[in-house]
Amino acid sequence: MLNMQTDAFLACETPYDQAAAVLFSAPFDGTTSFRPGTRFAGGAIRRDSDGLETFSPYQNADLADCRVFDSGELDLPIGDVKGALAAIARRTKTILDDGKLPFMIGGEHLVTLGAFQTVYSAYPDVNIIHFDAHADLRDDYLGVKLSHACVLRRCHELTGDGRIFQFGIRSGDRSEFSWGAGRVSTRLFDFEGLEQTVQSLAGKPVYFTLDLDVLDPSVFPGTGTPEPGGVSFDALRRAATYVCRHARVVGCDVNELSPPYDQSGISVAAACKIIREMLIALENKEV
Amino acid sequence: MLNMQTDAFLACETPYDQAAAVLFSAPFDGTTSFRPGTRFAGGAIRRDSDGLETFSPYQNADLADCRVFDSGELDLPIGDVKGALAAIARRTKTILDDGKLPFMIGGEHLVTLGAFQTVYSAYPDVNIIHFDAHADLRDDYLGVKLSHACVLRRCHELTGDGRIFQFGIRSGDRSEFSWGAGRVSTRLFDFEGLEQTVQSLAGKPVYFTLDLDVLDPSVFPGTGTPEPGGVSFDALRRAATYVCRHARVVGCDVNELSPPYDQSGISVAAACKIIREMLIALENKEV
Amino acid sequence: MLNMQTDAFLACETPYDQAAAVLFSAPFDGTTSFRPGTRFAGGAIRRDSDGLETFSPYQNADLADCRVFDSGELDLPIGDVKGALAAIARRTKTILDDGKLPFMIGGEHLVTLGAFQTVYSAYPDVNIIHFDAHADLRDDYLGVKLSHACVLRRCHELTGDGRIFQFGIRSGDRSEFSWGAGRVSTRLFDFEGLEQTVQSLAGKPVYFTLDLDVLDPSVFPGTGTPEPGGVSFDALRRAATYVCRHARVVGCDVNELSPPYDQSGISVAAACKIIREMLIALENKEV
Amino acid sequence: MLNMQTDAFLACETPYDQAAAVLFSAPFDGTTSFRPGTRFAGGAIRRDSDGLETFSPYQNADLADCRVFDSGELDLPIGDVKGALAAIARRTKTILDDGKLPFMIGGEHLVTLGAFQTVYSAYPDVNIIHFDAHADLRDDYLGVKLSHACVLRRCHELTGDGRIFQFGIRSGDRSEFSWGAGRVSTRLFDFEGLEQTVQSLAGKPVYFTLDLDVLDPSVFPGTGTPEPGGVSFDALRRAATYVCRHARVVGCDVNELSPPYDQSGISVAAACKIIREMLIALENKEV
Amino acid sequence: MLNMQTDAFLACETPYDQAAAVLFSAPFDGTTSFRPGTRFAGGAIRRDSDGLETFSPYQNADLADCRVFDSGELDLPIGDVKGALAAIARRTKTILDDGKLPFMIGGEHLVTLGAFQTVYSAYPDVNIIHFDAHADLRDDYLGVKLSHACVLRRCHELTGDGRIFQFGIRSGDRSEFSWGAGRVSTRLFDFEGLEQTVQSLAGKPVYFTLDLDVLDPSVFPGTGTPEPGGVSFDALRRAATYVCRHARVVGCDVNELSPPYDQSGISVAAACKIIREMLIALENKEV
Amino acid sequence: MLNMQTDAFLACETPYDQAAAVLFSAPFDGTTSFRPGTRFAGGAIRRDSDGLETFSPYQNADLADCRVFDSGELDLPIGDVKGALAAIARRTKTILDDGKLPFMIGGEHLVTLGAFQTVYSAYPDVNIIHFDAHADLRDDYLGVKLSHACVLRRCHELTGDGRIFQFGIRSGDRSEFSWGAGRVSTRLFDFEGLEQTVQSLAGKPVYFTLDLDVLDPSVFPGTGTPEPGGVSFDALRRAATYVCRHARVVGCDVNELSPPYDQSGISVAAACKIIREMLIALENKEV
Repeated sequence: MLNMQTDAFLACETPYDQAAAVLFSAPFDGTTSFRPGTRFAGGAIRRDSDGLETFSPYQNADLADCRVFDSGELDLPIGDVKGALAAIARRTKTILDDGKLPFMIGGEHLVTLGAFQTVYSAYPDVNIIHFDAHADLRDDYLGVKLSHACVLRRCHELTGDGRIFQFGIRSGDRSEFSWGAGRVSTRLFDFEGLEQTVQSLAGKPVYFTLDLDVLDPSVFPGTGTPEPGGVSFDALRRAATYVCRHARVVGCDVNELSPPYDQSGISVAAACKIIREMLIALENKEV
Repeated sequence: MLNMQTDAFLACETPYDQAAAVLFSAPFDGTTSFRPGTRFAGGAIRRDSDGLETFSPYQNADLADCRVFDSGELDLPIGDVKGALAAIARRTKTILDDGKLPFMIGGEHLVTLGAFQTVYSAYPDVNIIHFDAHADLRDDYLGVKLSHACVLRRCHELTGDGRIFQFGIRSGDRSEFSWGAGRVSTRLFDFEGLEQTVQSLAGKPVYFTLDLDVLDPSVFPGTGTPEPGGVSFDALRRAATYVCRHARVVGCDVNELSPPYDQSGISVAAACKIIREMLIALENKEV
Repeated sequence: MLNMQTDAFLACETPYDQAAAVLFSAPFDGTTSFRPGTRFAGGAIRRDSDGLETFSPYQNADLADCRVFDSGELDLPIGDVKGALAAIARRTKTILDDGKLPFMIGGEHLVTLGAFQTVYSAYPDVNIIHFDAHADLRDDYLGVKLSHACVLRRCHELTGDGRIFQFGIRSGDRSEFSWGAGRVSTRLFDFEGLEQTVQSLAGKPVYFTLDLDVLDPSVFPGTGTPEPGGVSFDALRRAATYVCRHARVVGCDVNELSPPYDQSGISVAAACKIIREMLIALENKEV
Repeated sequence: MLNMQTDAFLACETPYDQAAAVLFSAPFDGTTSFRPGTRFAGGAIRRDSDGLETFSPYQNADLADCRVFDSGELDLPIGDVKGALAAIARRTKTILDDGKLPFMIGGEHLVTLGAFQTVYSAYPDVNIIHFDAHADLRDDYLGVKLSHACVLRRCHELTGDGRIFQFGIRSGDRSEFSWGAGRVSTRLFDFEGLEQTVQSLAGKPVYFTLDLDVLDPSVFPGTGTPEPGGVSFDALRRAATYVCRHARVVGCDVNELSPPYDQSGISVAAACKIIREMLIALENKEV
Repeated sequence: MLNMQTDAFLACETPYDQAAAVLFSAPFDGTTSFRPGTRFAGGAIRRDSDGLETFSPYQNADLADCRVFDSGELDLPIGDVKGALAAIARRTKTILDDGKLPFMIGGEHLVTLGAFQTVYSAYPDVNIIHFDAHADLRDDYLGVKLSHACVLRRCHELTGDGRIFQFGIRSGDRSEFSWGAGRVSTRLFDFEGLEQTVQSLAGKPVYFTLDLDVLDPSVFPGTGTPEPGGVSFDALRRAATYVCRHARVVGCDVNELSPPYDQSGISVAAACKIIREMLIALENKEV
Repeated sequence: MLNMQTDAFLACETPYDQAAAVLFSAPFDGTTSFRPGTRFAGGAIRRDSDGLETFSPYQNADLADCRVFDSGELDLPIGDVKGALAAIARRTKTILDDGKLPFMIGGEHLVTLGAFQTVYSAYPDVNIIHFDAHADLRDDYLGVKLSHACVLRRCHELTGDGRIFQFGIRSGDRSEFSWGAGRVSTRLFDFEGLEQTVQSLAGKPVYFTLDLDVLDPSVFPGTGTPEPGGVSFDALRRAATYVCRHARVVGCDVNELSPPYDQSGISVAAACKIIREMLIALENKEV
């Protein structure tokens, strides 16, 4: 008797009911402003995770020892933005209701809204730590409110002022920065101040959203809107690990990998390794 | 005094008020089911049209002698399907109101709906000649009605039975073919019967929608859903020329070129040459 | 409770015990003489099968109605040719022992040897129908006997003369052709005589091995050794369908797709569609 | 004692003084109007010729039995068009003076002028058989006379009327065709009439220049100006073989392969195979 | 009444007569020694500038507030090096005569000579600040004097000793460095000493020529001759901004982007962002 | 009389009997675990070395002054791992027997075993300095002992404890690190301690094996298993130069470049430049 092949990220095969964290991917790129293709991120990450070890010499720990289940790729209605966000919200709610941590792989950054709305319902005092090249604080983009360029603005409509903490931002229009001043904490270019932020949020629930284009395009060319001048892989690895080990993360996502724009595969490899490090750090929290 | 550079398709620089046909492009791929990227077709076609001669040895005529104006690329609201279709409809209406022929470059196939609705308002007895690999007759795709996989079904809601004529179809689910039987004329695989169809429509207005994936993927790899077993370039060239010379075309479009999936550029070259031949044929009608 | 994602080819999810045919893939390219990469074929075919319909307008039948189970990808020992062939043989034996048809997706062409040895044990009177650009009749390649360039020669050591029927061959060294004369039936360049061959084998067991590089490189660029001047997609589709509908096929394989050498994806699409047509034909035999 | 590696096309290692034909490559693309890169053709052809057999099942003959020497790649002064043509002329003259046939691999089509001038000096009654997608009969291109778009016009200045025979032409501006009428024999689109042309030239010296873009871009995407609607590989193979077997060829070239525009390598493979067939045909003349 | 589409870099649509700086591009790669393709830089930069914001968080200023007009792409005679340089010189002269700053986008580095000759006529005391991986000080390259490998040597023939200041150089032959010693100021590998150089030139006219291959190939793979070991994006951004804000720049260029060699688009993105920063800095001078 | 073209790396044309170092390449990738293609490294390195200067501004010395002979590419039996290693060993022995330094260009990392076995026979007290992203200390990989993932483990079977010094390691499974502790010196992530290691080995023979994937994938995407977080080009250049100038290197190799996975060519450029610097440093030893 032969079995059908399953297709999980790396070693993430802990049975669902014993899992502490649950992966899923959201193949959505319906509002991507420049180059679409992030819908293919989940598949590429699962496939190329074969090339990565489960052991982390950075954390001296092994993903094989972590309690993670990969629940696979959502079937999203293409061309229906609200329907896609609703499906993301439903999956997030199932995972939260079962007492587990939702870990979403995008898709474009708008997918964060679907997950965050659900997390916000469960944790109304939740804060957001946001790594990105782009501020994503526009009120609308060409008249569209549900756009990946507006996603943090939509989140702010839920959280109100003082609860969104951005790092690594190096692009935005002038109005985003002026609107954000006083409402959102925006660290330009790098991760300075991250440790203090995490410490100031001690005990409070945190949603961590990581737009991988915070990386320099040399490290991560496969993305919709490459923005030169980003952080190094090691800077991001350290910062993401810090958040996952020291903050009270109640939900997270990694987004904006667009595999068709990087035929070398190094962007997928970077995404895989960041996800491995985050999952290991979440399992080995020091809170 | 220096001028700003303009960027028209090939020789399409007849002043607007003297033009008989008006090009525009609709950079929309928001419902693409597999591989997005058709939003880049208009730009690529204009740019690579530099590599093509204006003269056609097939028709012994020159595009430079045709009265065509290129009105450029629409600014479409990304993530807003209805808004995008409305913008397409407005541009189509402007052109029709000015007594000119609208010639749209997609974008994915759903853009046809925006243009056709307007053409239908002006010509309620309009028929559709449709070249495609895919039947596009689904009622919905994953629950979405405004999808490129449903576009001819949506058009049929306007025209009713007996006014859609498909050629080259080689893909669809069973329900599309069974639904279509008796409602839509579907010629599988090739263009047999095209001349009779065109003659049977003599004097009647025709909207001509050409999904370039009717071509074999060897000739046209740069498309969202390549479907092996298609027609040759010369077969398409002859068929498209025939329609444009002999039918009473009141509107047309060419769609589904996705440049990122063909780095050799041959798909863009095929699109450019088909458009050139169509424009020359429209100018040199034998109706 | 969420399920782990499975990853089958198209609609091939009939439960194993009800299946008549069983797919598996053999990610092996260890003897590829020019450009390696066929190890990635199985993954690419499963993934991109999403872009293909289950219904065939050619055969007016639906893969969803066929009894096929996809048992996934073998784990092969990289660098150990004999070990890889043994693992292929074991999987083939399991399927045959369970009374089902083994349908293997390569890998390079040497994988055929692992499957054929097992089929030969079960059916000592088995014949081989072989579509290929290359004769693959060398006795050794740079001193190596277990090479994809020698695979039909190795098969001949089992069958003896008169039981191998090649079609579409357009490449080989002189010694292959002179050795083959009288031992192997070799039709150069196309499929002429295929119907007669199939009819002459009526009732006898047939192993069908299809090297996709029999296709013209324009249709199928993604292969290790592209050989210009091949057959069209429709010629192959018709020929492969004919074999699967009319011969008594007891085992088969499709091989030599190398996805990294075709970034447009049209080669993967061609492989997917040929496999769909073969599976439908095998289910709807007219023997 | 180890030897330095040599790098010849396929089996072309007959000692120079015993060779009947001598290959060389001219890495020049200095007047390419659209996409440069043909300078890399010679290197790519030599490298990928490893993937091709020396034996031709079409002609039942083996390149290893042909008397061909590959004299390698010329060192051309980049940016100096006249200097490059002079270097090509010198190499051609050396080969002609030694009583051998010069066989040049371009480079863009202008390289033909350098070789042809020399051949013309040796054979003032020489005729030209020209396969191409483009007429190349412009008097100048953007004011430049030494351009690949003008190369046959420059050759005509030597030969005068009635001695240039074009086949497969499907692109040109109107003035080229009108100028050519009566001066040059131009067969549009295919090779019809080739046999008669060759027979009419019986005994007369012929220079054969083959622009590979006469092939359809599906077969040969790697070229500077892909022109849809070309001939198939087999049509070209037959036509080129016919010329080389039956005409009195005193010099020839194969040009316009631009490897960077075809990452699948099928264009290089097509060039290699055409060159093999031509060399075998030249050795096995039936004049 | 519809307008023809214009195609300017980012927000550079200030009317010509109100502009302080004028962009143009020079699509020339006729002397490129290794991999051609820089002719496509201007088009790619204009097209992909859509993906970039006009606002700079580095300078807290907006390109939309700068007085820049984009006069588009020159039509250059392909294959005629002197003719191309003359056309560049004419455009430069028009802009200078109108009292505006010429800002050229190459093309290969030889284009600098055309612009610099004109600037030198207007400002005989002009100095050159030169960022590059390559010294470009050869007297000739394979006998050719008008080569991109010789461009600073040609400029030196105008300026004489002591007026050329190179930074970031990491490649050259021994003779270039020995010839340059005492004639040209060459800072190897980085930008150390740039501020002092700019200050020492206070009040003097400066031509600033930026060969983008000074960047590390990881950041900027799309160039003709990638030279490992270059500077980071931020190092270049700071250095180029410093020159444009603090030196009396009377002309400048950015060159050697070759888009075909970078399918990820990150090289084009880097070029766009550097140009944006330079234009903003030139508008906000602190001299 | 024309000569056949030779094809050596850069300036490595010192006659064999006067050479101090001898290059050869080993086109082997038969045990590559993820993405094959390193067999093409030697050809790509020789070809693209044309784009590199022979002079090093880092060492102020010229490769043209070094006594290096390039003996070309081995012909290896594809599919026969032991046969390939034997051929490598034979070439290494010839070079060593002639009193010269063997410098091998891989291929995958297993090629090191063939060369090292021979070096070990000649120098039983030889030590290994190993730069790599991966520890390569597995006892077997999927049951295979002769695997590129096990190559240093196989070397350790010859040297025993205390004679292997690894730098830059950032990937391995837990068992590799625990097995290695006390047996192998492993510096994680960077080159700290390299100078002390070299000094501690003063006078002792050293085999230097450099897996280029120690570089960050941004610098070196063209490799089989890209591992994010690697060293910069300059860090590697300095470290490799230090080893070659200051250690008593009796054999060395550079491996794991896989050109098909980097179409920009920057990985090949990095390999070429590292090899140039190593060859210059070996000639200019300071021991």
